[in-house]
Amino acid sequence: MTAEYPMIPSGPFAPADREAVYRAIYSRRDVRSQFTSRPIDDATLLRLLRAAHHAPSVGLSQPWNFILIRSAAIRAAAQGAFARANAEACAMFPAQRRPLYSTLKLEGILQAPVNLCITCDHSRGGAVVLGRTHQPQMDLFSTVCAVQNLWLAARAEGIGVGWVSIFDPADLRALLHLPDHVSPVAWLCLGHVEELHAEPELQARGWASRLPLEELIFHESWGQHET
Amino acid sequence: MTAEYPMIPSGPFAPADREAVYRAIYSRRDVRSQFTSRPIDDATLLRLLRAAHHAPSVGLSQPWNFILIRSAAIRAAAQGAFARANAEACAMFPAQRRPLYSTLKLEGILQAPVNLCITCDHSRGGAVVLGRTHQPQMDLFSTVCAVQNLWLAARAEGIGVGWVSIFDPADLRALLHLPDHVSPVAWLCLGHVEELHAEPELQARGWASRLPLEELIFHESWGQHET
Repeated sequence: MTAEYPMIPSGPFAPADREAVYRAIYSRRDVRSQFTSRPIDDATLLRLLRAAHHAPSVGLSQPWNFILIRSAAIRAAAQGAFARANAEACAMFPAQRRPLYSTLKLEGILQAPVNLCITCDHSRGGAVVLGRTHQPQMDLFSTVCAVQNLWLAARAEGIGVGWVSIFDPADLRALLHLPDHVSPVAWLCLGHVEELHAEPELQARGWASRLPLEELIFHESWGQHET
Repeated sequence: MTAEYPMIPSGPFAPADREAVYRAIYSRRDVRSQFTSRPIDDATLLRLLRAAHHAPSVGLSQPWNFILIRSAAIRAAAQGAFARANAEACAMFPAQRRPLYSTLKLEGILQAPVNLCITCDHSRGGAVVLGRTHQPQMDLFSTVCAVQNLWLAARAEGIGVGWVSIFDPADLRALLHLPDHVSPVAWLCLGHVEELHAEPELQARGWASRLPLEELIFHESWGQHET
């Protein structure tokens, strides 16, 4: 049945190539402070967007758009929206966590030479989308797969990426003039980086720790650690 | 400020390593029909789960769990849940699309030697999670990043992955005994593959086509193609 269509071999990568993929996965970081001012050239940026565009998408609906933001005025407005949300966020934490929270740098909107908003168009692919009939959020999930493709490609290109999520989405919607059928999914800061934290910055700073993987794996049913 | 913490160099990968990352991204497919019956050994499976576990997560909350399903009974029940949802799904399409829809194979639940449900625990990380204060869906988005990490690692390992989304989520919740604070995010079929479609299967079969990337890129604001 599959023989009618062109196929490609799909065995395991050679060890060095496999390790390159794992290296991208393990050394990827959420970058806020390490951006250099060096511009990202158009060819590199296009390779990142092309990697995002080749993410899996529900029913091949490709619900994403890529809004590149370089304008100082728009970045300043975004930084203002972040600052308002972040002040609200800080107040939500228990009093003993606020001093540490307030020392964390959680965005690099003005430092990064390029900001990128990846959006999800809920109308893409028509009224009924294959694979989305019973899980309407699948279009958002496809868009997130595009984010992660871009993030890993960026690591291989020496470009750092930071995902800023401390925004009232209505602020982003207004700032970028998004129509009602489009949701902002990820606001990303992109720029060249020369070094990255050896471990996730929130772990280095004592905010949270990596959970033991084995505790997160179950067999056949929720909570079942043995088969 | 960052000098207090251990850092790693983060320049671009060597060309061959960069190409390996792009090869994983471009040759990854949503697999339904190409699984061989060869089991996945535990070490390989653990590498895939470890790749998923190193996804970015909001506030380092790591909201994911990994439920490995090999039981024939549970896979048969899942396949039944899919078949019910898929019959409903087919009826939602315009009459002229139903004949093609009904010929598409949209899952490999019984063929794949391992099924994997990746879930999102909405209580993980406590009542207030850094970065999730203004966008509560960020925990689901983190979980999807884990899915995409696993998917790309699997490509490098010669393992095919298919994401089955045509389920009533309540069926998965009941089948896997998920507590109320946990959502099923992705039901994945995993198995060795010897060949993959050269282009996405839905494109090969004429269901949908790749959109031109340049039409999806805007500058500074929604809809703006020129700077």
